[in-house]
Amino acid sequence: MSATTGFARTPPPPYHAVIFTSKLAASEDRGYSVLAQRMVDLGSRYDGFLGIETARGADGLGITVSYWRDEDSIRAWKRDTEHQKVQRGGREAWYERFEVRIAKVERAYGFAREASA
Amino acid sequence: MSATTGFARTPPPPYHAVIFTSKLAASEDRGYSVLAQRMVDLGSRYDGFLGIETARGADGLGITVSYWRDEDSIRAWKRDTEHQKVQRGGREAWYERFEVRIAKVERAYGFAREASA
Repeated sequence: MSATTGFARTPPPPYHAVIFTSKLAASEDRGYSVLAQRMVDLGSRYDGFLGIETARGADGLGITVSYWRDEDSIRAWKRDTEHQKVQRGGREAWYERFEVRIAKVERAYGFAREASA
Repeated sequence: MSATTGFARTPPPPYHAVIFTSKLAASEDRGYSVLAQRMVDLGSRYDGFLGIETARGADGLGITVSYWRDEDSIRAWKRDTEHQKVQRGGREAWYERFEVRIAKVERAYGFAREASA
């Protein structure tokens, strides 16, 4: 299962989440998915990275949630990726708009059909 | 702007988020969007509801994040919607799998192009 299409296998809370909501700039769709996959690959190499979930609808709105052991691992990841993004002209070039929210996951529960693949 | 296609207008943190990641059961796609919209409409009538963002990709994975003033408003909403869901045979009937994570948003920042509509 690809890291970009599945559920994150997170441990019991507490842990942290970075909720990234975005709308792509219309002209930038083509190269974006490559960049997004690179960011996923990059994140998964970081200590404290727990997983990532991402969805983008036909209306262009996308939500990506990455999960992290603690605030320190988020900061380390951000410090390094900011450097990369500056080299590429900035994350701003890809987006019409984005919002980033850093949150502490306190409770979690789920459901899965027994017969599901 | 529809509540289901845009960015949530959240206040400065702290506030809470319910991250709902889901995969629809293949046979249930048709009625689902109606139910989802009803849940959005329902949530927005609750005291403490701050907004909602949702995206579902072509692979069937969806992420919906609803934002709330505090834990109490989440609990009140959940109590009422659980009741509705039981009447409809349970949320489980619609999904192959879902994960719910309740989190406290501690920091937030964003970006928007000046020229954007």
